[in-house]
Amino acid sequence: MKMHIAHSQIVYFDNNATTRIAPEVFEAMVPYLTDYYGNASSAYRFGAQVSEALALAREQISALLGCSPEEVIFTSCGTESDNTAIESALRTSGRNHIITTAVEHSALKKQCTALERRGHAVTYLPVDAQGLLAVEEAEKAIRPSETAVISMMWANNETGVLFPVEEIAALCKKKNILFHTDAVQVPGKISIRTADFPVSFLSISGHKFHAPKGVGALFVRKGVRFAPTMLGGGQEKSRRAGTENVASIVGMGRAAELALQHLDHERTTVKALRDHFESSLLAQIPGTRVNGHPELRLPNTSNITFEGTDAEALLLLLDKEGVCCSAGSACTTGSVEPSHVLSAMGLDARQAMGSLRFSFGRYNSTAEVDRVLAWLPSLVQKVRASVP
Amino acid sequence: MKMHIAHSQIVYFDNNATTRIAPEVFEAMVPYLTDYYGNASSAYRFGAQVSEALALAREQISALLGCSPEEVIFTSCGTESDNTAIESALRTSGRNHIITTAVEHSALKKQCTALERRGHAVTYLPVDAQGLLAVEEAEKAIRPSETAVISMMWANNETGVLFPVEEIAALCKKKNILFHTDAVQVPGKISIRTADFPVSFLSISGHKFHAPKGVGALFVRKGVRFAPTMLGGGQEKSRRAGTENVASIVGMGRAAELALQHLDHERTTVKALRDHFESSLLAQIPGTRVNGHPELRLPNTSNITFEGTDAEALLLLLDKEGVCCSAGSACTTGSVEPSHVLSAMGLDARQAMGSLRFSFGRYNSTAEVDRVLAWLPSLVQKVRASVP
Repeated sequence: MKMHIAHSQIVYFDNNATTRIAPEVFEAMVPYLTDYYGNASSAYRFGAQVSEALALAREQISALLGCSPEEVIFTSCGTESDNTAIESALRTSGRNHIITTAVEHSALKKQCTALERRGHAVTYLPVDAQGLLAVEEAEKAIRPSETAVISMMWANNETGVLFPVEEIAALCKKKNILFHTDAVQVPGKISIRTADFPVSFLSISGHKFHAPKGVGALFVRKGVRFAPTMLGGGQEKSRRAGTENVASIVGMGRAAELALQHLDHERTTVKALRDHFESSLLAQIPGTRVNGHPELRLPNTSNITFEGTDAEALLLLLDKEGVCCSAGSACTTGSVEPSHVLSAMGLDARQAMGSLRFSFGRYNSTAEVDRVLAWLPSLVQKVRASVP
Repeated sequence: MKMHIAHSQIVYFDNNATTRIAPEVFEAMVPYLTDYYGNASSAYRFGAQVSEALALAREQISALLGCSPEEVIFTSCGTESDNTAIESALRTSGRNHIITTAVEHSALKKQCTALERRGHAVTYLPVDAQGLLAVEEAEKAIRPSETAVISMMWANNETGVLFPVEEIAALCKKKNILFHTDAVQVPGKISIRTADFPVSFLSISGHKFHAPKGVGALFVRKGVRFAPTMLGGGQEKSRRAGTENVASIVGMGRAAELALQHLDHERTTVKALRDHFESSLLAQIPGTRVNGHPELRLPNTSNITFEGTDAEALLLLLDKEGVCCSAGSACTTGSVEPSHVLSAMGLDARQAMGSLRFSFGRYNSTAEVDRVLAWLPSLVQKVRASVP
């Protein structure tokens, strides 16, 4: 067992992995973890009160996504949203081919590997050195009457690089193909207006925007056919059976409201924090570079290669100082493979293994950034000296 | 919108639909909804603390189930546990035939209907007038080299009637067939010792035993092959991807501890409450009878037919008095079909539509039961007078 660390000693720069639950979110949840425990499917008033709480959360999420409440299905996580969307696209279209990218989250990646094993065809679109994706590549990959769906992240979890989802959605519409985007990293960072571009499915996950872990949502555009994965009770209009995690959903609803309110904060304050961190780091530590397109990127994410270092060693030293950040995406930590995202961008194994992601958020301060900037150069030097 | 009712005015006799979260459970959850928000998959100490909390919950659940921690997979609900077990049984066995019963929860029922549509064969075993199931019927239904799995509830949610799961498990083992039981209604009411009988899969759901809604578990016996449904990150040893609902899982772990501690309370105090309710009711109101075997039944459940009444009308009047109980299972409320469970037991539509389920629990008192007993005869009389 590792030594524990008090939460108050933490400098948390890992907001793309998960976020602190907002105090307002916790407050909204408490009644549904204590007094209001009725089952939303029950006929009596004590159940109806809970069902109204779910309805409010659905409105709050639909405001976040720029859609109507009927287009929101609550799920247990981003992974469930992703898996369900792809499964539904395949079943309703009866087609066999999926187009995705080389840099997706493991939810899509592992599902596509499993689908290939079951006889489906998958095309993985490449990205360039800046992590960008060319719309023409997607267009070329389409197989008429065979391609069921194109699925790609809106924003990459490791680099923050943005994909041209509006253009891809328009392309899919033109070609009569479904389009799914894993937008898990987007809420609160970039405005989501599903009404403005013809995306068919869009996944989000509460814990990436200050709601609790283990709750997500899937946007399914009105008119898009949907084949449910979870079968049983009539919850979610029979699109997702199972008693709802009421408290988590209520929390996610409140978190959606806050995400909208903090959008400007993220685009200005958090971005300024991130930019200050990056420019200071590059100025202070030779042999460092930022991965991903400098502009077409989330305002909060910084993926840095420290040439001649080992990310695991750096993480260990940072952890000693209470600094939380990550190498590769959190969901695959434990593996020793270099990041598939950085590899797809052309970094060699050593560069990829010497890269760290710092992801900032609502609760970070300039003081924290400056504290880390004060330590980091000597830590890097230390690791460089020890790496053969 | 219906008028609201304060939780303090509620008499909650619907514990098979959902339960009040135990205060001890809420208390255990709070740190993971506030200060300890790290991602369990992260390498740093702040993540490891969360991963330790999950490990403790897994131990607590394994103590409840009489299994080893490695045999527990956390899920988002009982429905997911059920669906996943059946899907896995079909995939790993490569067989096509499922045996289940006529009185299952909608999770199994709807999944089997969907599987039939996809070309699978399903046998629905009948029950007798007391809701009991004959092991010989199950044995006769087995198709050598075709039957993949037998799946049946341990305890019926509507009547509390118990199925002979130990014997069926032994039969399945003998015949080399997988066995799944939906034990969602069992924790805290009957002792579960998976080590003592060869069940392959067993589903539970937190909110049925004073944990929050939207969290469950699936027991998968060591050595039984498992094909995961949710694909992505390496959570749950790659058996169930998706960031864990840490707070809910921690709550379910604590609830499991309490369920074990309260087992005797349920078997004595809650049973006495239920028996007092039933005998008083039958003595006071002519034309009432208890559905289900008098002994082979959960200690907390009472399913009563009030001849010549309409359950919906009774529920409405009970709701006015703040009494929560139900007609049919909560997950299918909203439908006007007579209960498939009572129909399978031979009740005609009128009898089934005139039946209510009262399910008692840890937080109920004799005073509450007596209050309801004081009203109920006149309510029934009122409804009988109004029903043609």
